[in-house]
Amino acid sequence: MQHISLFMKITSGVLVYFKNISMKKLTRRQFLLKAATAGGSLAVYNASLALDIFDSHVKTENLQLKPGDGKTQIVILGGGIAGLATAYELEKAGYTCTILEASHRIGGRNMTLRHGDLIDELGRPNICQFEDQPNLYFNAGPARIPGHHQRTLHYCRALNIPLQVKANHNRLAYYQEQSSFNGKPKRQVEYIADARGFLAELVFKAINKNVFEEELSQEDQEKLLHFASYYGDLAKDGRYKGSQRAGAVSDRMLSHGNANTPEKLDAFLKSNFWQDALNHSEFYDWIEPLLEPKGGMDQIVKGFAKSLKSRVITKAQVQDIEVLEHGVNITYQHKEALHQLKADYCFNNIPAPLLVGINNNFSTDYMNAIAAIKRKDLFKIGFQMRERFWEKEGIYGGISYTSQKNAQIWYPSHDINAKKGIILGAYVWNPDDCEYFANLGLKERLSLATECGENIHKNYAQYIESGVSIPWSRMNHMMGCGNAFDEEDYPRYFHKAQGPEGHHFMIGDQISYHPGWQEGAFASAEAALLKFNALIKAKS
Amino acid sequence: MQHISLFMKITSGVLVYFKNISMKKLTRRQFLLKAATAGGSLAVYNASLALDIFDSHVKTENLQLKPGDGKTQIVILGGGIAGLATAYELEKAGYTCTILEASHRIGGRNMTLRHGDLIDELGRPNICQFEDQPNLYFNAGPARIPGHHQRTLHYCRALNIPLQVKANHNRLAYYQEQSSFNGKPKRQVEYIADARGFLAELVFKAINKNVFEEELSQEDQEKLLHFASYYGDLAKDGRYKGSQRAGAVSDRMLSHGNANTPEKLDAFLKSNFWQDALNHSEFYDWIEPLLEPKGGMDQIVKGFAKSLKSRVITKAQVQDIEVLEHGVNITYQHKEALHQLKADYCFNNIPAPLLVGINNNFSTDYMNAIAAIKRKDLFKIGFQMRERFWEKEGIYGGISYTSQKNAQIWYPSHDINAKKGIILGAYVWNPDDCEYFANLGLKERLSLATECGENIHKNYAQYIESGVSIPWSRMNHMMGCGNAFDEEDYPRYFHKAQGPEGHHFMIGDQISYHPGWQEGAFASAEAALLKFNALIKAKS
Repeated sequence: MQHISLFMKITSGVLVYFKNISMKKLTRRQFLLKAATAGGSLAVYNASLALDIFDSHVKTENLQLKPGDGKTQIVILGGGIAGLATAYELEKAGYTCTILEASHRIGGRNMTLRHGDLIDELGRPNICQFEDQPNLYFNAGPARIPGHHQRTLHYCRALNIPLQVKANHNRLAYYQEQSSFNGKPKRQVEYIADARGFLAELVFKAINKNVFEEELSQEDQEKLLHFASYYGDLAKDGRYKGSQRAGAVSDRMLSHGNANTPEKLDAFLKSNFWQDALNHSEFYDWIEPLLEPKGGMDQIVKGFAKSLKSRVITKAQVQDIEVLEHGVNITYQHKEALHQLKADYCFNNIPAPLLVGINNNFSTDYMNAIAAIKRKDLFKIGFQMRERFWEKEGIYGGISYTSQKNAQIWYPSHDINAKKGIILGAYVWNPDDCEYFANLGLKERLSLATECGENIHKNYAQYIESGVSIPWSRMNHMMGCGNAFDEEDYPRYFHKAQGPEGHHFMIGDQISYHPGWQEGAFASAEAALLKFNALIKAKS
Repeated sequence: MQHISLFMKITSGVLVYFKNISMKKLTRRQFLLKAATAGGSLAVYNASLALDIFDSHVKTENLQLKPGDGKTQIVILGGGIAGLATAYELEKAGYTCTILEASHRIGGRNMTLRHGDLIDELGRPNICQFEDQPNLYFNAGPARIPGHHQRTLHYCRALNIPLQVKANHNRLAYYQEQSSFNGKPKRQVEYIADARGFLAELVFKAINKNVFEEELSQEDQEKLLHFASYYGDLAKDGRYKGSQRAGAVSDRMLSHGNANTPEKLDAFLKSNFWQDALNHSEFYDWIEPLLEPKGGMDQIVKGFAKSLKSRVITKAQVQDIEVLEHGVNITYQHKEALHQLKADYCFNNIPAPLLVGINNNFSTDYMNAIAAIKRKDLFKIGFQMRERFWEKEGIYGGISYTSQKNAQIWYPSHDINAKKGIILGAYVWNPDDCEYFANLGLKERLSLATECGENIHKNYAQYIESGVSIPWSRMNHMMGCGNAFDEEDYPRYFHKAQGPEGHHFMIGDQISYHPGWQEGAFASAEAALLKFNALIKAKS
């Protein structure tokens, strides 16, 4: 481990030097100038790393890596989204990359299932039985891109991946809660109108009782009355009496239409959707509109694959990672033989919970930081439906939420009016329910999700032609989904895990503040590449 | 007018008879049986008409007209959406139709503008200068279909018109108010988070002051505290201190991200968007997701045109409508000559404000009812943009709202990442502003909308390559948009205007409770066809 100690010594030396400088009085630029004076450009790099003042303002779109010399060898462990983006950027700059991927396919959790695809579940490998039609696919991993995920959208542009709007929220889809409203599915539009109405009515009443008199001017109180009235569609007396916003019980086209009767406030409060699903439309990553690649999320993987010239070795399982003073030495198994690959730099995308079980010579601190990344879980089911029955209910895409174990049903918003469609029949976040589903047999999982669906859509079962289940905790070579630090572990471990350790850089959404999103994966690659770039510049 | 009096006499006779029956004690079925006994099936028809107890539960999708005898001639005045649907249904049932259309094109306000199209404005005919590209089109009329417009969606299915999701609300698009927030465009997501936060905080405070103690149980008060907290993303002390829902001022991918600072409540209340645009997402016809035909809304018109075998005579201006005892006699001008067309039935789609100026022999009541339909107005501008600059701002479709005269900017959500795009540069509802724009010259309209756009998007002007303006009040053969009864006129005139008068049926969105929407037009056709069907059955 001599190379590591040496590296740490350099870093420490620079740090000791900087302890004698009053940081507060230096601008970032002055600080780096001092560092340069003290130890040269490598010292600047090390100081920047140690003090975490890296320039993270360069976005992927504007990434300009120092051109490669044609000799520098790079190994990328794991062909997930972060690995592919790293290879893409490095190749573009003139570096030679090799991607070692343990699975039979690249893309990692960006996985779109179609007819004949292997679902590589541990101990239960099975084949997707969907019909062989271009519109019959299921995004088993990421499925949505918000307009502010700049890096993901940049790569879609760069790789010429056509995008379309994905209906994610659908006011005509249902909330269905076993213990509320007699278990009947309720159109979300009704629940939402009630939520706004109730809140607004309470504000209206409170203002009329002068509750806020000290805090609010007379003028503001009057404006608030108006605001509450508009917001909740209140009657002139400030009461919420139902709203045409929730639709009408009679046809609105040839008569005025009669508004739905609202729920009673206490029945509304007894329900649970206001705690969760009601606010999904507000979460920044789910704000409308959301986008998706036409033809499946894995068009992004295919786009990278088409663009990359790098050697990609699938079914290559890493057995040992040795960080050297000026490179890395990787031992991997491929076709029943062990191989060695020596490279100048390594970008490591292996899921942390698996990585900690692979031989390595990481420093204790680095290893501890990686070990702090927890395994998270998700469970999904996709069903092929012989008819798009949801469209007959006015549902063109979006999500129904339920209190049942399946949690969600998603309807496709592409290929509207096609004969068949793939819906998501379960999207489970709750760890216990994930485990419950994962522990069931393949058929039993589908049966459970079918039973749940029957409580939302009449004759749900009779439309099902085939199904797939993806328990991410049991998917080979991944064994988890959205691996992440617990919130309290970020300050302790995040900076360290972002590394690098010598010439070894961790990447992947797990090394971001945004696990479970491709944007997090791309950001991790961007961050690692910026450090790599600084290092390679400092060394030249 | 003898035929009319005769008709009225029959109707009156039946009515007199029914005045002697206590309606309340009769079921609908019993009532119709009595009518049949009294005067035969024609009497049932007339009584049903007079008492407005028509079966309106048959939806377009299930419309089964009595098969035509191959001889019955039908004339349809106006080839707008209602006229096309009427012809489609009648043809399907075996009737022979002729469509007389005053304009050079069919479709009415369903108008998608492309390269080379004539914009037939009164006195200012002009040609659309958009580039000749399939993605460069502008929906000058209807542009959105909600999932509950069953008739419109039925025709899209029946005519094989591919649909796609249209991003209508976009949280990343802007609110821009000249007199608020220093006139700076504000991402809607921020405004919405503040609106929810402020309302929720007020409810939270009111509950803590026991304002609602008589009305709410202790348990409900506690639940309400939670509801308000979730709804507004309140801090633990019940205060709204800004929310990550509004995004972050720093990158969220590699650090936790710092939430935007919320506005102050009084600054929020001084703004005006809570009165209007904030609630657009709640209006039942605009609830997400919205749909649109791929390639432009006029794919619906093209779908009908492709399907119809009826004779369609464009540039045919109706000069006289004579209702006969068993038919209609239409005089129209075509190619500088007057022509007569005698038909057994007439469906009339001519905009009421124009129809009242055409010679006819309508009864005074019928004429008064038609005259009660008011001319409404809308004004739109479409711009061809050399670059899709909005996508660089994270805006993929949807609407920015402004207090300026142009009112709205819409971004296309189709053909994302294409080089160029057509945006809507103005969508004006305010009657004064409509008139203001309409009174400007073609160039001046575009200049004004450009100036407005500059206050929302930097360098807006430099992206504009060409533009079109559509003042619906000045569009030949239409001279208005969404003609409608004033709310108080519905009870007085609506039933009468729905007619028919003898064999003459009014159609069009103007004869619905939903003017300005294709669904209203289709519903009007459905209603007229149901009456026609009852009449033709009664007569056979």
